[in-house]
Amino acid sequence: MLGKIALEEAFALPRFAEKTKWWAGLFATDTAKHTAEINDVGPIRLDFAEKHGVGLQILSYTAPGVQDIWDAKDAQSLAVEINDYIAAKVQAHPDRFAAFATLSMHDPQEAADELRRCVTQYGFLGALVNDTQRAGEDGEDMIFYDNEKWDVFWQTCTELDVPLYLHPRNPTGTIYEKMWADRKWLIGPPLSFAHGVSLHALGMVTNGTFDRNPKLQVILGHLGERIPFDMWRINHWFEDRKKMLGLQETCKKTIREYFAQNLWITTSGHFSTTTLNFCMAEVGADRILFSIDYPFETFEDACDWFDNAEMSNTDRVKIGRENAKKLFKLGPYKDSEA
Amino acid sequence: MLGKIALEEAFALPRFAEKTKWWAGLFATDTAKHTAEINDVGPIRLDFAEKHGVGLQILSYTAPGVQDIWDAKDAQSLAVEINDYIAAKVQAHPDRFAAFATLSMHDPQEAADELRRCVTQYGFLGALVNDTQRAGEDGEDMIFYDNEKWDVFWQTCTELDVPLYLHPRNPTGTIYEKMWADRKWLIGPPLSFAHGVSLHALGMVTNGTFDRNPKLQVILGHLGERIPFDMWRINHWFEDRKKMLGLQETCKKTIREYFAQNLWITTSGHFSTTTLNFCMAEVGADRILFSIDYPFETFEDACDWFDNAEMSNTDRVKIGRENAKKLFKLGPYKDSEA
Amino acid sequence: MLGKIALEEAFALPRFAEKTKWWAGLFATDTAKHTAEINDVGPIRLDFAEKHGVGLQILSYTAPGVQDIWDAKDAQSLAVEINDYIAAKVQAHPDRFAAFATLSMHDPQEAADELRRCVTQYGFLGALVNDTQRAGEDGEDMIFYDNEKWDVFWQTCTELDVPLYLHPRNPTGTIYEKMWADRKWLIGPPLSFAHGVSLHALGMVTNGTFDRNPKLQVILGHLGERIPFDMWRINHWFEDRKKMLGLQETCKKTIREYFAQNLWITTSGHFSTTTLNFCMAEVGADRILFSIDYPFETFEDACDWFDNAEMSNTDRVKIGRENAKKLFKLGPYKDSEA
Amino acid sequence: MLGKIALEEAFALPRFAEKTKWWAGLFATDTAKHTAEINDVGPIRLDFAEKHGVGLQILSYTAPGVQDIWDAKDAQSLAVEINDYIAAKVQAHPDRFAAFATLSMHDPQEAADELRRCVTQYGFLGALVNDTQRAGEDGEDMIFYDNEKWDVFWQTCTELDVPLYLHPRNPTGTIYEKMWADRKWLIGPPLSFAHGVSLHALGMVTNGTFDRNPKLQVILGHLGERIPFDMWRINHWFEDRKKMLGLQETCKKTIREYFAQNLWITTSGHFSTTTLNFCMAEVGADRILFSIDYPFETFEDACDWFDNAEMSNTDRVKIGRENAKKLFKLGPYKDSEA
Repeated sequence: MLGKIALEEAFALPRFAEKTKWWAGLFATDTAKHTAEINDVGPIRLDFAEKHGVGLQILSYTAPGVQDIWDAKDAQSLAVEINDYIAAKVQAHPDRFAAFATLSMHDPQEAADELRRCVTQYGFLGALVNDTQRAGEDGEDMIFYDNEKWDVFWQTCTELDVPLYLHPRNPTGTIYEKMWADRKWLIGPPLSFAHGVSLHALGMVTNGTFDRNPKLQVILGHLGERIPFDMWRINHWFEDRKKMLGLQETCKKTIREYFAQNLWITTSGHFSTTTLNFCMAEVGADRILFSIDYPFETFEDACDWFDNAEMSNTDRVKIGRENAKKLFKLGPYKDSEA
Repeated sequence: MLGKIALEEAFALPRFAEKTKWWAGLFATDTAKHTAEINDVGPIRLDFAEKHGVGLQILSYTAPGVQDIWDAKDAQSLAVEINDYIAAKVQAHPDRFAAFATLSMHDPQEAADELRRCVTQYGFLGALVNDTQRAGEDGEDMIFYDNEKWDVFWQTCTELDVPLYLHPRNPTGTIYEKMWADRKWLIGPPLSFAHGVSLHALGMVTNGTFDRNPKLQVILGHLGERIPFDMWRINHWFEDRKKMLGLQETCKKTIREYFAQNLWITTSGHFSTTTLNFCMAEVGADRILFSIDYPFETFEDACDWFDNAEMSNTDRVKIGRENAKKLFKLGPYKDSEA
Repeated sequence: MLGKIALEEAFALPRFAEKTKWWAGLFATDTAKHTAEINDVGPIRLDFAEKHGVGLQILSYTAPGVQDIWDAKDAQSLAVEINDYIAAKVQAHPDRFAAFATLSMHDPQEAADELRRCVTQYGFLGALVNDTQRAGEDGEDMIFYDNEKWDVFWQTCTELDVPLYLHPRNPTGTIYEKMWADRKWLIGPPLSFAHGVSLHALGMVTNGTFDRNPKLQVILGHLGERIPFDMWRINHWFEDRKKMLGLQETCKKTIREYFAQNLWITTSGHFSTTTLNFCMAEVGADRILFSIDYPFETFEDACDWFDNAEMSNTDRVKIGRENAKKLFKLGPYKDSEA
Repeated sequence: MLGKIALEEAFALPRFAEKTKWWAGLFATDTAKHTAEINDVGPIRLDFAEKHGVGLQILSYTAPGVQDIWDAKDAQSLAVEINDYIAAKVQAHPDRFAAFATLSMHDPQEAADELRRCVTQYGFLGALVNDTQRAGEDGEDMIFYDNEKWDVFWQTCTELDVPLYLHPRNPTGTIYEKMWADRKWLIGPPLSFAHGVSLHALGMVTNGTFDRNPKLQVILGHLGERIPFDMWRINHWFEDRKKMLGLQETCKKTIREYFAQNLWITTSGHFSTTTLNFCMAEVGADRILFSIDYPFETFEDACDWFDNAEMSNTDRVKIGRENAKKLFKLGPYKDSEA
């Protein structure tokens, strides 16, 4: 279909080209090609989009990005640089590109301020954060955003009426050594990404972030980082823990209500119709958004799958475009009414 | 249906009654009732089974059990005590009860020897291990069994032709403090269990345990600890990592082949027809086994769901009984042909 | 959930009580109870609704009703009587009851006129017709509405902006004797209903009714009378027949487009979560409406199933209420915002 | 996958080439190509099979075939000719081709005798019959096989231990004129095929054919001719009709039991993973068989879909080959163990 919106689409700063190429070698076949694709915010992406019916790409800085920088000042400085950079790029093609803010997540107020700057000054559509913020003197610590200290940030999201995309990053520090180093093939999409984000997102649910910020909208990639699989089981145990142990103090609604009111899932990197059908049953097509995960996945794989996946026309249009138009309150873009 | 087999069914040693009661307080409503149920290997269980059509219960020691004991000698001593205890209990009702061996997993040869003793001397049907073995001087370490050092143990499993049930345990040590302490509601069934076992099981897949032990059979509870949700995504990335990065050296088959040849999933604690249907599509009904997770779940919840879940009669009988009969090469038990 | 809307809910004229009782004997256990229930448009229904969370019942005359009367004058006369009768009943409880017009379908203009009278004079929400109109001197004929002659009627529907519910009736005439008399157990819900309505509805699709009346809305009960099962197969062959044989002359869109733009399905008499999940994938939750089929089905069976069926909260509210509110442009009724 | 078995694969007698070409014009694009394909029992089919991994094709005479011949003598004569013809063809490639007997269904004993001749003399694997037998002086009648008169035939099937494939044919006679002539686009795969076979098969269920012949095996194409969609609804009403109205006299088991013990479904002409997943839930993978419906469908469409459809390896092998090997007690054929 034409006019699709994709929202987990990564770019990198060209000045890090060497580092990007090295990183690409950890997973991608052709590091030069990957580096060219991720550094491009112009013809390469626009051609792919044209060929595969993507009308609007909402761009975000690649993982782990700023969340990997444990020095708070460096992190903030890089975030600002990235936002200024992509703002200029996006303005050159306003009907084809949009952006999520990149944020240093060392300090809630600082993150809130930079988000506000990006939304009000540049028209960014929200923010994308790569899971926990690496922190501490030696980068051993992880900052989670699922406690009250971060409410000032979440309030800013709801005040600005923009969502946050909670994207994964690779494990670091003790966690890395304890569990992942010896089973390196599971780092990233096969497992560690889902572990990290499902913990963080469900931490927000149980620690009261959504109860204190009931209008907050958070997007999860990869069809929900495996959470939908256990919707029944999570609900069963959450409700038990409310009856007996006090979970209801910070988590008043059911897990299904948070998924109906606060959470979204995207198809990024998970091009399976059987899993999508399952998510339609457990999450509902109204909260599912098409995405690719380019350039880690190809436009071709994502779009050929989605355009031909067996589903109702109603849901294809909603997942492909209309749900995102509502969430982001989008005006016209290329083929937005095709 | 009559004659169901259940295989994630916990018991505890009565001499730990106080500790059991305290532990129950972490999650269960009526600690006295829970303690009575888990300590009983007789009338309480037999009555529930009678009422709900469970013909055979394969019993195992409750988590975290021996895997929580970081002193190797204490661990082995307790394992032997448990096995001797349950052997006597099971022999009193051979047509209603069977058992999995409890094993100290500090040393592969010791674990193998105790498994052999239990299978040959007592007729146990395999072993159930609670994820990693806690170890180290202060219990900070975790022993995984997904490396070559453990092949002597896995060879014994295949030589004895018995499966291993990889059951979860709660996070401990640094992992606990780094990630779980601040989001305590997610410990156990809502999240940490699936994290632990999915890492361990996929570690076995990618580190070559099944390639080196192609006849090894491993059972995962809770409909597969969320792994089936990402079957497409895991397969996609594993195959990519084979092309580019060398994963094929230890993981020659596809993830779908390991699920067809080496892995089983049970319904323990996940009484959702929608999720079961999804697992039928992704894993196949031939590799799914009914289970309850008593006394953490009730016979009533599990059996009322399963007996009435919308599914074909063919699959109900296979999942409820016939698959397990084949896997464990069972002879007659109560209602085994009902 | 509270505030559900149900729209395949039958009533009968009390003056036919004896005939109703005889008819009930063909399928129902307690003919007196059934007769009382179907004749009641007051306390019995309102009590059931109260108990099971149904906020609004859209009532329609029971099958085969007027479609069984092959004398055109008698048919029209009865239709008018029924409409006047139910209008009065509904007006007594405007926040709990609404009605579909009953129509004689011997003549398109006459049917259109009576529909207009019911909608404009009484505020009826559309019409419910029991498949083909029995006709001919001896009742051997069947009038289908899928040809151009009926466009005057369909234009009136779209002009009034009300949908038509295409409900089944029992086979009669030659068809009955040729096929159904010798396999009587298949008459009605087990098979003949789906045969009749699927033929008629797909006849409308292929004979151009929706191309000529693109805003027309038609509702099918019983989760779509088996049509969704063959969505792929129908689409495959329709598109082939367009390429080769001329189907595109009257059927320009795909079958999936007609289901997205013109057709709705209800859950009446089909309380299966597995089938509902399948319909969510093939038809989409936006075009599915809750219904019971009372008194042939019970409020209890329908509502206990629907209220507890595993699905997203988003879709439960849409299917249970919100989709119908949009389709019928409903104002407030009991618990309409609960 | 290699070694697939396909069992709804049509051939025609070359001496009817002109008629075949005319018939092809009713639905196929290239009538010469179609005629060549359906007349070939050699290189064309073998090449397609080689290319798409079909190890064994069980051939049957194309519809409506002998079931369209209302003169009993002519019908029998043609059936014998067809069987002798295909027996010779199959014997030339015994590791690639097998056959279903073609039967005149005017007389149960005659049909039984010809089936016995084909199975014992030629090694045919069962029979394929195109729904009702056209009969009567002017071809207006339809002979159904769902009454006691036909038990002599069904007893022969079970005695020979071979299944019958109940294939559709086009509507004829009064039925045709009453319902299908005016909605010609629905004749065949879009609707009439499913109507005919679902009536006949469920007639067998309710009229006691399977109760009187409990070992009888009947195969339905097209994923079950829409019956699985209503499994819940059929079961619900059958069980009600047993309680109240006497259905249990001829239909002692539930509809799900007949599907578990007597009925099979094939994928012929229905290459939809979503529908297959649904059938796995409602019918079970053990009773599903791969098939193509060549040359009305292509090897490419069927095999590209099936080989790449998202499903477990276990079920792909069972549906693709192993279920059929058990049903037909097959020995080795090309790639039968691949």
